[in-house]
Amino acid sequence: MNQAADPGTLALLKTVSTATLTTLLYKRGFRNVFIQGARPLRTGQRLAGPAYTLRYIPSREDLDGVDAFRDPRHPQRVAVEEIPPGAVLVMDCRGDASVASAGSILATRLQVRGAAGIVTDGGLRDAAGIARLDMPAWCSGPSAPTNLIRHHALDLNNPIGCGGVPVYPGDIMVGDDDGVVCIPAHLADEVARDAVEQERFEAFVLEEVERGATIIGLYPPTAPDTRARYKAWLAQRTS
Amino acid sequence: MNQAADPGTLALLKTVSTATLTTLLYKRGFRNVFIQGARPLRTGQRLAGPAYTLRYIPSREDLDGVDAFRDPRHPQRVAVEEIPPGAVLVMDCRGDASVASAGSILATRLQVRGAAGIVTDGGLRDAAGIARLDMPAWCSGPSAPTNLIRHHALDLNNPIGCGGVPVYPGDIMVGDDDGVVCIPAHLADEVARDAVEQERFEAFVLEEVERGATIIGLYPPTAPDTRARYKAWLAQRTS
Amino acid sequence: MNQAADPGTLALLKTVSTATLTTLLYKRGFRNVFIQGARPLRTGQRLAGPAYTLRYIPSREDLDGVDAFRDPRHPQRVAVEEIPPGAVLVMDCRGDASVASAGSILATRLQVRGAAGIVTDGGLRDAAGIARLDMPAWCSGPSAPTNLIRHHALDLNNPIGCGGVPVYPGDIMVGDDDGVVCIPAHLADEVARDAVEQERFEAFVLEEVERGATIIGLYPPTAPDTRARYKAWLAQRTS
Amino acid sequence: MNQAADPGTLALLKTVSTATLTTLLYKRGFRNVFIQGARPLRTGQRLAGPAYTLRYIPSREDLDGVDAFRDPRHPQRVAVEEIPPGAVLVMDCRGDASVASAGSILATRLQVRGAAGIVTDGGLRDAAGIARLDMPAWCSGPSAPTNLIRHHALDLNNPIGCGGVPVYPGDIMVGDDDGVVCIPAHLADEVARDAVEQERFEAFVLEEVERGATIIGLYPPTAPDTRARYKAWLAQRTS
Amino acid sequence: MNQAADPGTLALLKTVSTATLTTLLYKRGFRNVFIQGARPLRTGQRLAGPAYTLRYIPSREDLDGVDAFRDPRHPQRVAVEEIPPGAVLVMDCRGDASVASAGSILATRLQVRGAAGIVTDGGLRDAAGIARLDMPAWCSGPSAPTNLIRHHALDLNNPIGCGGVPVYPGDIMVGDDDGVVCIPAHLADEVARDAVEQERFEAFVLEEVERGATIIGLYPPTAPDTRARYKAWLAQRTS
Amino acid sequence: MNQAADPGTLALLKTVSTATLTTLLYKRGFRNVFIQGARPLRTGQRLAGPAYTLRYIPSREDLDGVDAFRDPRHPQRVAVEEIPPGAVLVMDCRGDASVASAGSILATRLQVRGAAGIVTDGGLRDAAGIARLDMPAWCSGPSAPTNLIRHHALDLNNPIGCGGVPVYPGDIMVGDDDGVVCIPAHLADEVARDAVEQERFEAFVLEEVERGATIIGLYPPTAPDTRARYKAWLAQRTS
Repeated sequence: MNQAADPGTLALLKTVSTATLTTLLYKRGFRNVFIQGARPLRTGQRLAGPAYTLRYIPSREDLDGVDAFRDPRHPQRVAVEEIPPGAVLVMDCRGDASVASAGSILATRLQVRGAAGIVTDGGLRDAAGIARLDMPAWCSGPSAPTNLIRHHALDLNNPIGCGGVPVYPGDIMVGDDDGVVCIPAHLADEVARDAVEQERFEAFVLEEVERGATIIGLYPPTAPDTRARYKAWLAQRTS
Repeated sequence: MNQAADPGTLALLKTVSTATLTTLLYKRGFRNVFIQGARPLRTGQRLAGPAYTLRYIPSREDLDGVDAFRDPRHPQRVAVEEIPPGAVLVMDCRGDASVASAGSILATRLQVRGAAGIVTDGGLRDAAGIARLDMPAWCSGPSAPTNLIRHHALDLNNPIGCGGVPVYPGDIMVGDDDGVVCIPAHLADEVARDAVEQERFEAFVLEEVERGATIIGLYPPTAPDTRARYKAWLAQRTS
Repeated sequence: MNQAADPGTLALLKTVSTATLTTLLYKRGFRNVFIQGARPLRTGQRLAGPAYTLRYIPSREDLDGVDAFRDPRHPQRVAVEEIPPGAVLVMDCRGDASVASAGSILATRLQVRGAAGIVTDGGLRDAAGIARLDMPAWCSGPSAPTNLIRHHALDLNNPIGCGGVPVYPGDIMVGDDDGVVCIPAHLADEVARDAVEQERFEAFVLEEVERGATIIGLYPPTAPDTRARYKAWLAQRTS
Repeated sequence: MNQAADPGTLALLKTVSTATLTTLLYKRGFRNVFIQGARPLRTGQRLAGPAYTLRYIPSREDLDGVDAFRDPRHPQRVAVEEIPPGAVLVMDCRGDASVASAGSILATRLQVRGAAGIVTDGGLRDAAGIARLDMPAWCSGPSAPTNLIRHHALDLNNPIGCGGVPVYPGDIMVGDDDGVVCIPAHLADEVARDAVEQERFEAFVLEEVERGATIIGLYPPTAPDTRARYKAWLAQRTS
Repeated sequence: MNQAADPGTLALLKTVSTATLTTLLYKRGFRNVFIQGARPLRTGQRLAGPAYTLRYIPSREDLDGVDAFRDPRHPQRVAVEEIPPGAVLVMDCRGDASVASAGSILATRLQVRGAAGIVTDGGLRDAAGIARLDMPAWCSGPSAPTNLIRHHALDLNNPIGCGGVPVYPGDIMVGDDDGVVCIPAHLADEVARDAVEQERFEAFVLEEVERGATIIGLYPPTAPDTRARYKAWLAQRTS
Repeated sequence: MNQAADPGTLALLKTVSTATLTTLLYKRGFRNVFIQGARPLRTGQRLAGPAYTLRYIPSREDLDGVDAFRDPRHPQRVAVEEIPPGAVLVMDCRGDASVASAGSILATRLQVRGAAGIVTDGGLRDAAGIARLDMPAWCSGPSAPTNLIRHHALDLNNPIGCGGVPVYPGDIMVGDDDGVVCIPAHLADEVARDAVEQERFEAFVLEEVERGATIIGLYPPTAPDTRARYKAWLAQRTS
């Protein structure tokens, strides 16, 4: 992880939606930041933290028997023990959800160690157990088989692909009910600030829409008076 | 929309299941009326209304920047403002759910304007927000990225494909927890009537089955006495 | 079904997870026992019972009209009437979920007849109705269209593929929230015993992890004292 | 095989195209007769013969080791030895081309025994060797791994699915460079006759088009004089 | 078609590769211009011409029987008769190659009428016959069934998606053995010029590489002397 | 590369088929050694050499513009300049063939530098140009767009996945018309020897089959006299 993630930024990011963030990143030229296929195991949870990555390659019969886990240097187990508090374990499973990438015991250990969450483009086993944790998790779906059947844990904290998205260690992973966005590390602060402002404006828009306003001219605010009404609305809220 | 949908028909269609409707359409030779991959954002909701269509083609970088929405004639925004009350916004996203086809602000506007619901073979963003509306929505799943990244809104109320199904403007879209069926407009009335009758019979069948009756001869009613018992059951219910 | 499934074994299997079972089968060389893509219609249910199979091939227009169900020998209907109490109806739909493989009336009949559950790699129609039954069901998802549109029920209780897994009549199907595992019949007893022991050990591990223990040396128990602490924990629990 | 295929019919079918046959079957209500994904290993070959089927289910590690082929009753080997002369070996591989369904030695044996050809929705190994035979083969593509890795040969001459199409033993398989069509056995004679007539007409149409005629009114022959000119063309050819 | 395509530009585009063109368009910000999945029916052919589009939606049983072609206004047949000389028929089949989008008679008529070629993300029937024409064709592969089984020809010369790419009428389609690129109409002239220059430079690079030069500093020409050597090479060639 | 590949072994491996090799590896417990989806650009070529790997992750707009190639440390270019003579460039493109992983200029440089071949689960651009080289190449298919659009070249000579198969640097890649097999480095010598013997036996089998022998008892040689006849055949050949 190249730089410590700013705690204030992370706090802001937990209050904004992935929908808003993907739009702000699109404005900056980023089209591919949403982890495709990663769904929350439980709805209503939020995630924001720097990525700590684990890469799986396809397993091989002579290397990935059940005894593989007896090795104290097995990267999956090392990952769980060495991930920094507040970080998000992001796993590259090549989008293969036919087996698990982790289970509830490891997820519990991650929670005890203070990890912020799990993001994987593979499956999770004992998914109901993981869903009961406070620490949130996003994956392709529940999948019972042990990862050894298809995956060989290779290395930690190198850049990976996850759900079709490049994830560099330290990138900020933000999750909500829609899914997970990966914010390039150097953009996290400015995107967080803009997102808060954007969502403030959208709260105003939503109130207007609920009162019957047309979308045209309001969203985006191309009508001359929209900005003025927004300022008035803002003033009223903050007074 | 070639013809106004009959309100009585729509009321009937909200009481019957998509399972029944697909069978009745199959009897009439229609094999491909169920929107593949469209799941309800919230269970327990019902939909019945004529289709108002929006077609997306793949987006192009020079045409579909974030400023595209500033154009008051942008078809997605026009769709939301011009859809007739009671109609269903049906979107052709070529089955691509990697981005959204709409979000909660537009969905709220649709609800305020009296639309009956949303059906898309793409994603929906801020899906939790849309799920809280009274107006129901069916889609391929939550997806945060703005539609501009992949979709260019092209035109309104032309025939489209949605979830592999042909949808002509004015066709009647009916939705429940299983998904959404598209009834060719000219068949809606007769199919609605038959569906009510079919479901009445199936209520009888279900009671018989719960009491221990065999399926054979009962469903379909090939045994000589099934029709007689059904008539008696009907008489008892309506007396 | 070659042999009667042992009731004690089935009772044990209803208490253990599919995650544990896939690992124990992997230890015995079985990599492909988890029905890919079969999700529970309702969470929190458990399944254990011998497989009773139904094979579908693609339907043909002249053989699979709606009248096909009038034939009292139609294999789908025969399956529902002849499945032994306690057995699981496992259907081979070639992974095609564009139509249903059964609906709520047949599912209700299955429950009345004492079947243990439904497992299919196709869809289920009136899925909400099936989900309300006590008898659990796993499938690729809700799908309204009648099976006749794509499937021709061909034969009963022959070996099939389901979700990519070989299923021989009499194999033991075990289901939980993660999905369904197929245990080759001759291994059910020993795997059940081992699974109970393995889950007892994992209960100990989970307590240790919740108290802050490291995974390394504990899971698997390669550290010298792990086994000793486990014995003490066991003694305390059973005293 | 319920009935012997008529030699005259087979001879006619080797002269007509799968394109023509699918249209004639569509006219009779059959939409799903073309084996999806089956490509010829060598272009320029023709096939016509009754189907002799082999069904594979997913393999299981304890049943499908390399020694499985030592069993003289192994269905794949029995198929090769018992297929009637003139018949087509049609294999159901569940569309899985990650391994082979047969190789060049078995294909050579099939040719020696007088089989008409091979059709599979799986792979073929040593495909170049098979392509050099006089007996034609259609498959999803070359694939080196032995079938045992994924497939368990289960039974012979039962109805199967192949490339999404129902294939009943005795159905007539016809192949050309476009692929393979499966003609329901009872329709083979009439479809063959109609196909010859249809292709005769299309030869006329093609000549007209090459001379500059418009498609409209010619193909289909809705213009009043098209039939007349066709008759003259026919008379000239046969005189 | 908004503007006539410049004949000189088309002539240049027939001499350059789709590889070069996609790079030049990427430099201008276009990432999605290569028709995914469209393969040439015959290698060694070149294509350059403006797009004339035909859109298919899913077919419907009551609208798309075999008699549909008797209608002189059927859009597929109108397309073939009205496409301007030199234009490319580009068809939107929603990537569905299970049926054909055209056959050899229509392709012959297109050639007679002077069309430049065919591009489709669906199949082509009697593909061997089309491959023998001088007019080139790119498609997802040979597929015998008539388009009516899956496709309803809807309209002509509206923007479409083809192989995941937006295609506007008048865009310039360029094809070679790698596949087909769609150049936005307004960029065709400048991209053609740049492509010729780029390929001239690559001819120089290839000669250098064949003589043993390293790629580094040569391609791209970051080494100080690369440009000088290229100028000398150019001077020698043109002298 | 952990160990130098034995030249004698490589010479043997160029004479045997991937079909034979996958069977011999299956006998040793390896089920997943065949690079799925990698097809030869030209038939009739053979490959045998140790793997030199290049890993791509998804590209990111700010890192992978066209100027990325100006960096002399760009891993794709470094790979081409540093691959040892006789080695095979194996690329991990996550199975994404929508863009190229290399083109004809780099392939030519590879040939000049003595590389044995190219294996990729992505596309290749200017594929016709690569096919004309003496050095063979296997890929998912021709694809014109530059790799930068989807791929970021990350690192060299680390273990990767390619076509679903684990490839460790130094593993021996063997290719023929069926495709490419990856032999774990430590097994190459013994597998090569066994393959030569196996193919010698299969040459005998093929002759027997061509003369009319049954497969049963011959292949595998379970009949008592098969081994004896094989010995006689061998003696005759070598005398």
